[in-house]
Amino acid sequence: MMAEESKTLLEQIDSPADLRKLPLGSLPQLCGEIREFLIRSLSVNPGHFASSMGAVELTVALHYVFNTPYDRIVWDVGHQAYGHKLLTGRRDSFSTNRTLGGLSGFPNPAESDYDTFSAGHASNSISAALGMAVASRLKGESPRRNVVAVVGDASISGGLAFEGINNAANTPNNLLIVLNDNDMSIDRNVGALNSQLAHINTSRIYNDVRYKAFKCLKKLHLVSDRRRGALLRFNNSLKSLLSKQQNIFEGLNIRYFGPFDGHDIGTIVKVLNDIRDMEGPRILHLRTVKGKGYAPAEADPASWHAPGRFDVATGHRAESDPKPGKPLKYQDVFGNTLLELARKNDRIVAITAAMPSGTSISTMQAEMPGRVFDVGISEGHAVTFAGGLAKDGMRPFVGIYSSFLQRGYDHIIHDVALQHLPVTFCVDRAGLVGEDGATHHGAYDIAYLRTVPGMIVASGRDEHSLRNLLFTAQAADHGPFAIRYPRGGGSLADWRNDMRELPIGKGECLSRGRDVAVLTIGPVAAEAAAAIEKAKGQGMSVAHYDMIFAKPLDEEIISEVAALGCPVITVEDGTVDGGMGSAVADRLAEMGHTATVHRMGIPDRFIPQGTPAQLRAMCGFDSESIYKKIVELARR
Amino acid sequence: MMAEESKTLLEQIDSPADLRKLPLGSLPQLCGEIREFLIRSLSVNPGHFASSMGAVELTVALHYVFNTPYDRIVWDVGHQAYGHKLLTGRRDSFSTNRTLGGLSGFPNPAESDYDTFSAGHASNSISAALGMAVASRLKGESPRRNVVAVVGDASISGGLAFEGINNAANTPNNLLIVLNDNDMSIDRNVGALNSQLAHINTSRIYNDVRYKAFKCLKKLHLVSDRRRGALLRFNNSLKSLLSKQQNIFEGLNIRYFGPFDGHDIGTIVKVLNDIRDMEGPRILHLRTVKGKGYAPAEADPASWHAPGRFDVATGHRAESDPKPGKPLKYQDVFGNTLLELARKNDRIVAITAAMPSGTSISTMQAEMPGRVFDVGISEGHAVTFAGGLAKDGMRPFVGIYSSFLQRGYDHIIHDVALQHLPVTFCVDRAGLVGEDGATHHGAYDIAYLRTVPGMIVASGRDEHSLRNLLFTAQAADHGPFAIRYPRGGGSLADWRNDMRELPIGKGECLSRGRDVAVLTIGPVAAEAAAAIEKAKGQGMSVAHYDMIFAKPLDEEIISEVAALGCPVITVEDGTVDGGMGSAVADRLAEMGHTATVHRMGIPDRFIPQGTPAQLRAMCGFDSESIYKKIVELARR
Repeated sequence: MMAEESKTLLEQIDSPADLRKLPLGSLPQLCGEIREFLIRSLSVNPGHFASSMGAVELTVALHYVFNTPYDRIVWDVGHQAYGHKLLTGRRDSFSTNRTLGGLSGFPNPAESDYDTFSAGHASNSISAALGMAVASRLKGESPRRNVVAVVGDASISGGLAFEGINNAANTPNNLLIVLNDNDMSIDRNVGALNSQLAHINTSRIYNDVRYKAFKCLKKLHLVSDRRRGALLRFNNSLKSLLSKQQNIFEGLNIRYFGPFDGHDIGTIVKVLNDIRDMEGPRILHLRTVKGKGYAPAEADPASWHAPGRFDVATGHRAESDPKPGKPLKYQDVFGNTLLELARKNDRIVAITAAMPSGTSISTMQAEMPGRVFDVGISEGHAVTFAGGLAKDGMRPFVGIYSSFLQRGYDHIIHDVALQHLPVTFCVDRAGLVGEDGATHHGAYDIAYLRTVPGMIVASGRDEHSLRNLLFTAQAADHGPFAIRYPRGGGSLADWRNDMRELPIGKGECLSRGRDVAVLTIGPVAAEAAAAIEKAKGQGMSVAHYDMIFAKPLDEEIISEVAALGCPVITVEDGTVDGGMGSAVADRLAEMGHTATVHRMGIPDRFIPQGTPAQLRAMCGFDSESIYKKIVELARR
Repeated sequence: MMAEESKTLLEQIDSPADLRKLPLGSLPQLCGEIREFLIRSLSVNPGHFASSMGAVELTVALHYVFNTPYDRIVWDVGHQAYGHKLLTGRRDSFSTNRTLGGLSGFPNPAESDYDTFSAGHASNSISAALGMAVASRLKGESPRRNVVAVVGDASISGGLAFEGINNAANTPNNLLIVLNDNDMSIDRNVGALNSQLAHINTSRIYNDVRYKAFKCLKKLHLVSDRRRGALLRFNNSLKSLLSKQQNIFEGLNIRYFGPFDGHDIGTIVKVLNDIRDMEGPRILHLRTVKGKGYAPAEADPASWHAPGRFDVATGHRAESDPKPGKPLKYQDVFGNTLLELARKNDRIVAITAAMPSGTSISTMQAEMPGRVFDVGISEGHAVTFAGGLAKDGMRPFVGIYSSFLQRGYDHIIHDVALQHLPVTFCVDRAGLVGEDGATHHGAYDIAYLRTVPGMIVASGRDEHSLRNLLFTAQAADHGPFAIRYPRGGGSLADWRNDMRELPIGKGECLSRGRDVAVLTIGPVAAEAAAAIEKAKGQGMSVAHYDMIFAKPLDEEIISEVAALGCPVITVEDGTVDGGMGSAVADRLAEMGHTATVHRMGIPDRFIPQGTPAQLRAMCGFDSESIYKKIVELARR
């Protein structure tokens, strides 16, 4: 018993059932302990920080009021869900967060029944939760299963969230949407909806009155599904009298509660209890502070989104130390190059979907704010907007992470490629991204972009090659042009070069040979080069071609390789099915090439988190795997 | 002069410049002439009908008030734009509408400078027009170039439109959004936004007063960009007093005008003149009647969306005549089969994105309205919603046209496949669709779905095969399962069969041979079979395999074909790059197959409109082309 006594509250919670035994009064202490735990743990095992710090009270309150996991909590983007992991049996394994074989950095249904849905791409929670709420209703489950979507103010600007809300308002369901409004996405929020949320905040007095009015009606048993319309009208007219504010949610006929202080756990628990069993869709609006409880993060939440290792006492982030001689990140090479090009070409504009810092488009933004458009989380719009800009003479560079660009696939086809518009897609975080795991790997871009008529798909093998491609994209009108590059550091001490225009669809022979031909695209060329070096040391004759372009394919290289008649290996940091290797194999098959064409890359399954090196080995396209394959094929 | 005199007004208009010479008073007559022209022409050359009939006045007014083509009109979905075609130099060629080499059924920038942007997929106009408006501003064009997006009330429920509005509200621009609100999409609109639009209509008196107030302010020179905030507040408070209605557009800080009668050309011209040169984004809300001016269409606008040939006097549609002995459309086979399965499996639910009739999901909807969800134009939500339903135990069938499903690509990966959820994608209008042309061909689905881990991609060669696949999808938990089928009629006199479960990833040998092996997927098997029959008549020995599954591939068939060592032809009604043939070529290349693998299907370019047979010949995968290729390869 003594040992039990000395445990913190958090240490006594192995599941939300334990949490629900605590008296309401001890929840603030628990929240404090969760914050301490997160600060301590994340200062040494880096991860997302500020979002989860801001969501502590709402997380505790949700598991306190709702009967999880029977009741469903659907997190929108998992950045905010670390507290949720601590309360749902994963406290002791939390130190493995984001490592190979460890906890996922996001809610992951494969990891826990409390993680109800994939949560790596923004704005999906409302649609998914609506599906669950409708499923429960159709199955006639008893007791009623509550479903809660927790969505940030940045995510709610995505078209998918709007589609979900729009549909939720018109489908029989009891969905509760909790809007975690910290007035920040990863970077600062943009867009009309956001400025509207700020407005709502100013009418606090109105909401207080209205909430009291609702409570009064509830006591009088006037709140019911049948009475919903009347209540809504009452609320709206009351609101009109009190605030003269518009409210988009009530405009959509979803009952709205808030805003409330998202760090006042007593209030949140009370409100949640009050509205938990109401019929019909509801929105609860909580105002929270990103980074809450850790002063350095509150002061600069964007930098503290994913701060890396830090010193708890001083708030000093190791990441901010100068790293002399270390190659720049590809993102920064891109950002600097974009600015360099934009200074000389006044038709260049840049578009980011809520990621100015992540993509380093912020570099151009700082000098040319009028030519940079942060459209918020809306990748589809980003692409179509770029189409409009290009149609009337501009040269848009759209910087989007590979896995998020999947949201713009149709827009690329219909709003850009069909009109052969000169939009440059800067496909960031292409290939294995490492610690963010399955939802974030940029595995499919070569494959899905290669299906699009007229699209150029390219990737440089190093920083100079990336710069040449960026230069080439704007030097003439080539139509849609995708340039992919990975997350993280390059390989060159000096990334600067005199940029030059590259011939479209021309690769490069890096070394000649006749036993095996290795064709690569992108920085994975280095893994292949090391393997080839080693094979040559063993007396093998191995050719190495950097294709540079997955589309159009270099037909001369293909003919050269076909003429060699030797086994062919293709290597790419992307899915093997439909990727560059597939293009090569198809062409060689057409020619009746008589030796094997072996494609290496990301296999046809979802890849978990880990370091990029670990994952390349797991996927079998690290230097060692390539070497082994060369040896095997050379011996045939 | 006499000849000129006897011309109708419409006949005197070769471009909008001619239109702008007419006095305001003659515009109603012109509108009448346009309607007569459309009725006469479309009764013999079928096309979209009701939408364009409803948009006549707004079309005339826009070209009358704005200086097109310098000013830009961006149509959202081209159904409504026939009047626009008649006024912009295409009156005499209008009879070629939707035929090979003729006019496109949608606005098409390749066809005319007046067609500013692709308009086949809904909800893109605001984003594209915003891009043009921003481009004009950045280029400092003088005189100011006005940009107008014309969007239907159905399109505006799409997430992309919302993203566009959200961004338009926060970017310096002078965009005018005209909301053509006919309270109908192709089928009846659904969703909260729509019920809100209906609400706005009831507050006509308020809007009249407010519009007068605006005009008064304008006279007093109080309307300017600087005064916009004040005006908005004035409007809102006035509105609160008068209507107690919410207005989502003003909630988003975009100035709103309307609703006005969209068939009162005098008013529309007046309002457009008043607001044309205002600064900042504006929305003009017009109420129109789909099918306006032709009684049968007004009475049943859904059937008259694209009515086929009809008798002008009686309104009798040839399409509605019974066609004894004619095979059912694939859509109807699907719709009937879905209902049949849903009767036996109570976990089956169906989801359509605004196309209950088009997909024939309406068949199930009529009997089981509670298990069918029409989510409106929101393909992304449709997929993620299905993911939520599947996660909690339902078996959703999502019926979406192939080219529109492109909008759900990321959602398929992230919200369904990552969790291996049993969602069945009924990929309608897969392959060449015919008259709707480039924006509507379902060319890419095999290629983009095949990139998704765990996804099953299948297509039956006839109605029985389709039914077996639908049965198979729900008979066990196979994870995500895509079943594609074309637009239009099947081949069997009796589509009914006793459905049976098919083994996943198993194809079928339809005929044996050794000179050439032909591998097909889907109903294109019939083209191949005819070609093979002919080749056999010439003494060639040709094998024919129906793969049925593009993923997973039948490895036994691949091994059998590899063992034959003969040339291989693959045929599919889909893009050759990344499609089924690509999967086959990749596997054979891996094996070092020594003969050619020739892939036939939709080539790597955008295909225009025409009849499916014309287009198959153009793409080179009709029976004749396949025959020639067999002969060519058999002779090698």
